[in-house]
Amino acid sequence: MSVLTASEQSPAAVDLGPAAALSCRECGERFPLGPVFACASCFGPLEVAYDLPSGDPEGLRRAIEAGPKNIWRYAPLLPVPADVADKPNINPGFTPLVRADRLAAELGITGELYVKDDSGNPTHSFKDRVVAQAVEAARAFGFTTLSCSSTGNLAGAVGAAAARAGLRSCTFIPHDLEQGKVVMAAIYGGDVVAIEGTYDDVNRFCSELIGDPLGEGWGFVNVNLRPYYAEGSKTLAFEICEQLGWRLPDQLVIPVASGSQLTKIDKGLRELIALGLVEDRPYRIFGAQAEGCAPVSRAFKEGHEVVRPVRPDTIAKSLAIGNPADGPYVLDIARRTGGAVEDVTDEEIVAAIHLLARTEGIFTETAGGVTLGVARKLIGAGALDPSLTTVVVNTGDGLKTLDAVAKTAGPTATIRPHLDSFREAGLA
Amino acid sequence: MSVLTASEQSPAAVDLGPAAALSCRECGERFPLGPVFACASCFGPLEVAYDLPSGDPEGLRRAIEAGPKNIWRYAPLLPVPADVADKPNINPGFTPLVRADRLAAELGITGELYVKDDSGNPTHSFKDRVVAQAVEAARAFGFTTLSCSSTGNLAGAVGAAAARAGLRSCTFIPHDLEQGKVVMAAIYGGDVVAIEGTYDDVNRFCSELIGDPLGEGWGFVNVNLRPYYAEGSKTLAFEICEQLGWRLPDQLVIPVASGSQLTKIDKGLRELIALGLVEDRPYRIFGAQAEGCAPVSRAFKEGHEVVRPVRPDTIAKSLAIGNPADGPYVLDIARRTGGAVEDVTDEEIVAAIHLLARTEGIFTETAGGVTLGVARKLIGAGALDPSLTTVVVNTGDGLKTLDAVAKTAGPTATIRPHLDSFREAGLA
Ligand SMILES: [Zn+2]
Ligand SMILES: [Zn+2]
Repeated sequence: MSVLTASEQSPAAVDLGPAAALSCRECGERFPLGPVFACASCFGPLEVAYDLPSGDPEGLRRAIEAGPKNIWRYAPLLPVPADVADKPNINPGFTPLVRADRLAAELGITGELYVKDDSGNPTHSFKDRVVAQAVEAARAFGFTTLSCSSTGNLAGAVGAAAARAGLRSCTFIPHDLEQGKVVMAAIYGGDVVAIEGTYDDVNRFCSELIGDPLGEGWGFVNVNLRPYYAEGSKTLAFEICEQLGWRLPDQLVIPVASGSQLTKIDKGLRELIALGLVEDRPYRIFGAQAEGCAPVSRAFKEGHEVVRPVRPDTIAKSLAIGNPADGPYVLDIARRTGGAVEDVTDEEIVAAIHLLARTEGIFTETAGGVTLGVARKLIGAGALDPSLTTVVVNTGDGLKTLDAVAKTAGPTATIRPHLDSFREAGLA
Repeated sequence: MSVLTASEQSPAAVDLGPAAALSCRECGERFPLGPVFACASCFGPLEVAYDLPSGDPEGLRRAIEAGPKNIWRYAPLLPVPADVADKPNINPGFTPLVRADRLAAELGITGELYVKDDSGNPTHSFKDRVVAQAVEAARAFGFTTLSCSSTGNLAGAVGAAAARAGLRSCTFIPHDLEQGKVVMAAIYGGDVVAIEGTYDDVNRFCSELIGDPLGEGWGFVNVNLRPYYAEGSKTLAFEICEQLGWRLPDQLVIPVASGSQLTKIDKGLRELIALGLVEDRPYRIFGAQAEGCAPVSRAFKEGHEVVRPVRPDTIAKSLAIGNPADGPYVLDIARRTGGAVEDVTDEEIVAAIHLLARTEGIFTETAGGVTLGVARKLIGAGALDPSLTTVVVNTGDGLKTLDAVAKTAGPTATIRPHLDSFREAGLA
């Protein structure tokens, strides 16, 4: 596992724009930019430290607004070279922030309610944001093969981004995935390796591979490229604030799998404040989990600072990480900002999927059902203030989790092709 | 069928922005704006006639560029009220125009090649563009139920748009559709009526319903709202030119089902020229069909001006219209602009789906395979000039037609979770 820590990194001239170094989230030690993710001193997770532009927020705001209509408008705030928009990449982002008045009315929200709808990304999930960063890191470090372990969505995003960028991809999935996810992983022409085992077995295999000569020269987006990859989630924070007219929302509800997305959205909001791009005022962050995989929610409710692993059992498979790496940071952020972490049952997830589709015409995957279901529960419990500006993050697309609603979304009536038969159905 | 012609329309005060009247495409007679689609004099199709802004192209261009990042930036050129962006609607459009250098290299294209990727729309097909227009027309005419006959994609788009807009929807589909399409049609909470019969039976039933008191007050997006609905396809032309820097492409390749989309893209290009928004110079339009449903392609090759109906048999189901209403107009446009209409086999469709995914990371539905397959064939035949700027229109999403590639997109290898097993697979 020696390649995973920072100590052996030789300081090379790497152009990742404003990214200046990697810094340890636990002990603060800094390391040169490299394909590593764990601190050589304390094994804490590394994250990207920046030399950010300062002193002219108005100029920066104008430059962003004049940029491309995708995440690269925020290139000055991301670990990517300045000319990133000119190179082939999957270019996700600037997805709609949907004003959700009809949903608000049903939930009893009197303030502004928005759904940040990331199903509009190229492979229809927020994963495109993080993978697009990993592509640039892979290029900077000279990797020509992009890889990952995945339950399906990530493999699709990696396959698509590698294809566009002209990189090879080799992704690893459990052998018993649904057809749709296998097709999405394989269609882009990269190698897809099905592993006889569970997702945990796939993960364990990838950890072995990355420490073996067989995996040399491979960029694993969610392992040795993770510090760069993870920064992609900040773009959700940037877009939400810009789309609100450079304004912080009062409350955000965000799904929690590894916890990385929530942690990085908070980091993004704090960066916007530090840069003077938004007014510095309080915001609350709420985390959402499925009851069948709620280790962070449980720790939050029990007042713990550590997260006890669980064995996942929920229809929200893209959130089913039983041992979430960033769980403690999620607890910290929820407590610091006056938020909470909550969970909902599979039935509540399905009900929330229907609610969002029926009120706003947005068909979300199970993870989106978790997030909206938790928002609804938090309003009922009085934890979420219905008079404030609230953003619910929808990270994926219902077409990828059809099974969850196949039993509850069918024809209202089946008729013969005659007016009499239609009249009898009583729908006119 | 009397409600379908314009003669009985009472001239009411209808605010659809620059839309001034309906005019007959055949005889030119004008009628007041109303929920009608056939000329009272000659039964020709009606289309929207405009009072378009004139005299200040630079000002209009700036206004458009300052508008929302969706089709409503073109509100001054569409049959919608000026405040359309403030009302709840599905808000599609401004999808990526992807510079496709790797695809170009494989096709031997030396000029600029772009894919206009409409899979980024809210329900992942170009149908959102046309349905969004129908929503505004329905509002203007006081309809509260939105309806359509559909093979699946359109029902989903109508369901989603009606939900967002707060309208009721009641859509009609054949009873034997794939699960994914049924779920997409039903998830938004509108009524979905499955009809025991073929798509032709569904169509015939809807024609009866619209002339019966049972269907009174219903807006059928592709029947009595068709003139407004169809205008939505113009936004593809507007976006392509704006995204090229207010420049006409030299060549466009567009799929042909009813032929409406191709016809309206041509109309949109001519409007941009008339308004002075782009330079007036020649462009060529190419139509793409599947061999198993190629009535327009056949007529083009045989030099006919009429289109003989066929019985469709192709995997490109969303293009399987055997008797295309706008077929003669497609022939006319292809001939007038120096283009062509061509068709490809199911095998060529599947190969083109793989080609686009492998080179550009875009997973298209079968209709997109038709369009790219035809582009490839036209280059081989010398009909499409590889040195010019070419745009290929991708109208939909591969997730909706998984069956087409299920046999050809699978894992490269299946292994046990051990390095030895991976080594044997020979992929490192
Ligand atoms: Zn450390
Ligand atoms: Zn006429």
